Amino acid sequence: MTNILLLGAGRSSSSLLHYLLRYAPLEKWQITVGDVNPAHLAPVLAAHTEYARAVTFAIEHEAQLSELVQQADVVISMLPALFHAPVARACVQFRRHLVTASYVSEEIRSLHEEAQAAGIILLMECGLDPGLDHMSAMAALADIRAQGGSLTGFKSYCGGLMAPDSEGDNPWRYKFTWNPRNVVLAGQSTAKYLEQGHARFIPYQQLFRRTELLDVPGYGQFEGYANRDSLSYRAPYGLEEIPTILRGTLRRPGYCAAWHALVRLGLTDDTVRLGNSAALTWQELIESYLPASATPNADVATRLAAYLGLEPEGAEMQRLMWLGLFSEQPVHLSDANPAQLLERLLTEKWQLQSGDRDMVVMQHLFDYQADGRSMRRTSSLVVLGDDATHTAMAKTVGLPVGMAVRQLTRGNIGQRGVVIPTHADLYQPILAELAADYDIAFEEEEHVP
Amino acid sequence: MTNILLLGAGRSSSSLLHYLLRYAPLEKWQITVGDVNPAHLAPVLAAHTEYARAVTFAIEHEAQLSELVQQADVVISMLPALFHAPVARACVQFRRHLVTASYVSEEIRSLHEEAQAAGIILLMECGLDPGLDHMSAMAALADIRAQGGSLTGFKSYCGGLMAPDSEGDNPWRYKFTWNPRNVVLAGQSTAKYLEQGHARFIPYQQLFRRTELLDVPGYGQFEGYANRDSLSYRAPYGLEEIPTILRGTLRRPGYCAAWHALVRLGLTDDTVRLGNSAALTWQELIESYLPASATPNADVATRLAAYLGLEPEGAEMQRLMWLGLFSEQPVHLSDANPAQLLERLLTEKWQLQSGDRDMVVMQHLFDYQADGRSMRRTSSLVVLGDDATHTAMAKTVGLPVGMAVRQLTRGNIGQRGVVIPTHADLYQPILAELAADYDIAFEEEEHVP
Repeated sequence: MTNILLLGAGRSSSSLLHYLLRYAPLEKWQITVGDVNPAHLAPVLAAHTEYARAVTFAIEHEAQLSELVQQADVVISMLPALFHAPVARACVQFRRHLVTASYVSEEIRSLHEEAQAAGIILLMECGLDPGLDHMSAMAALADIRAQGGSLTGFKSYCGGLMAPDSEGDNPWRYKFTWNPRNVVLAGQSTAKYLEQGHARFIPYQQLFRRTELLDVPGYGQFEGYANRDSLSYRAPYGLEEIPTILRGTLRRPGYCAAWHALVRLGLTDDTVRLGNSAALTWQELIESYLPASATPNADVATRLAAYLGLEPEGAEMQRLMWLGLFSEQPVHLSDANPAQLLERLLTEKWQLQSGDRDMVVMQHLFDYQADGRSMRRTSSLVVLGDDATHTAMAKTVGLPVGMAVRQLTRGNIGQRGVVIPTHADLYQPILAELAADYDIAFEEEEHVP
Repeated sequence: MTNILLLGAGRSSSSLLHYLLRYAPLEKWQITVGDVNPAHLAPVLAAHTEYARAVTFAIEHEAQLSELVQQADVVISMLPALFHAPVARACVQFRRHLVTASYVSEEIRSLHEEAQAAGIILLMECGLDPGLDHMSAMAALADIRAQGGSLTGFKSYCGGLMAPDSEGDNPWRYKFTWNPRNVVLAGQSTAKYLEQGHARFIPYQQLFRRTELLDVPGYGQFEGYANRDSLSYRAPYGLEEIPTILRGTLRRPGYCAAWHALVRLGLTDDTVRLGNSAALTWQELIESYLPASATPNADVATRLAAYLGLEPEGAEMQRLMWLGLFSEQPVHLSDANPAQLLERLLTEKWQLQSGDRDMVVMQHLFDYQADGRSMRRTSSLVVLGDDATHTAMAKTVGLPVGMAVRQLTRGNIGQRGVVIPTHADLYQPILAELAADYDIAFEEEEHVP
């Protein structure tokens, strides 16, 4: 019997928990789910009480964390990323394996040797992005290398969006399926990437105008903007010498140009408190970002379009109007910073409605030389949500974690210390299981560019 | 006899020290100058050894700080602002007065009641800006109020620039007379001000295009950009209900538009390390901020102009070219952030040459109602440097400090605790002495706007 402890059973854990419950009887797992508010788990666990229980858990309670970790063989942390470090330290102390879907932080990295000495694995970055991105890229890279190909370029994009039939009349073609704050503050640091051997930098104030258009078979066009540090992917992917490497985020075309207008206006700034009243209207807030009017009768939308050099009836202005930036609606939060006010508004406008289905899209573009020819391989994944519980996000984040846990409990993973799934013994069975059992599979195209 | 301790005898202390030495025999002062490197003081103090001595002093040596403060009656700190707090704490502990030219920090503010209880004054903001700005504005406000005027608007600008005959062929008409790093990072926070009762916000990415033109009699035009938080001046100036208030920084026309191009390009960012080599040339660095060229033969300057929408031969591009942004000169610093590289370049290009004279400009604009009429009073100050030692900056920062010390040692100042010079018993004698003995006087104009 293997004891599995799942810490954090929020929205993004639904598909993971479902997977664990499916395999618990077969794999002889006893599952303990620790959550700050476990009441919502009762109906989920009702048919599985022989091998699954829920407990109230809060990360502040160190003694409880120690006790729960000690009782487990494998710990899964789906807590917010900043809480992984105390869990990892407890895992090292009591010699228990840990699996998460989050980036390796400096704190986690520093535990590598202690974890090796303790004979355990701290298996990080096992979700979607990071997670599936590593697995699928490494599988394709291994395939290209096996055929004698030599990589000259690697670009990789991922985005959490809406299924086409759930976009409705929203011109942004976007709703929140992930942390809204992260979406509002995205990109507020200079992006770094490599292009044909040259370092390239894009500061925040230019990021959302420097996009690339991509085609995803069957789903049309997307636009990608560069992520913070694409260079950090060279070493783990074995691409130290590659001349071109870029990681980016996907949106539907037009999103970035309109978001760029919000950035230029100043609405994504989270460093200044405005000292505003909650009753301030959106139109008044926008007006306070404009210079005093030379034409006092011009409306705020017209003045904003002139200030930012936008077409008054153009695509960007239509998106800004749809958000209600020129409305009499109050901003609702007093003495807030603009990013908080924008997040408050977007959380309303970009809220998933019942019946909405989300969509995860990932695309890798590999350029390589083989047999003296330049080739391009495009590897694309589209995953649609089943419903509001088993969203594409929950499936693509949670299932790889669950599958990694299953490989681990079966003794198929020999690595110890801090590990990410760039190794074939991890990514091969997981990619195969995702494709066979969940139809989560990359579509590959190969052509001479 | 009164013992005066001056901590910090760098460049901006020259006129202050000169003032202290002038009055020491008359006022029966014994002066101790503490500096990390007092060797340069020997020739200055040579003729004054009866009442002045220099000692090696470093802020880290707490015991020495205690000893020096205990020996003094009045302490002047011209150290970098972050070192004022330990000096102030020692002043409170040993019940000694303190005078500085720096803003009241939170740490200093928290000492107010202790200082009052100790019977001492922590007299802050006694230099130029802050300092002379408070004094001159309060004097004019008192005068307007005495005539029955009711204030409707207050704008106040200050800048440290070059005397017209020292601008040479530098199209920026600017050189460093103050901390270069602060100039490079200026404005990186949303500016807040009030205009006709409405709050106005200007984010960094718009700040240098939102300038106002000002005329200074005899010196032509200047442009002003808004400072961080103009609203904080309402309470100390007794202008709580004023509908319009703005504080800003002065440059010569054209500076801000060209600086705006640097901001948009990303060169003032200090948050990202570029991982560059020191041998990287400026042209290569600029190229790395541009999108890949659609026209590979276009030179970097032409591509930058197209990218930022600048006239290829226009005023902004001329200023950027003059800096050498498109040269083969190396950036000289490895793994730096862009703001550090820009500061390194500007320190070379904007260096004061021997014979250069600087210029301090301050202008207040008061709008008020009197006898049913709308009036505007403009109060302007221009101070030219005497030479490379007694710069306008050193005079306007140091002389008010020295004069405040003289008022204090004569027992003319009764206030205790943390104080800034917004009170007539402080600003009146200082403004009078500056005008009578140093020809540092505001020129006032009054007209119906």
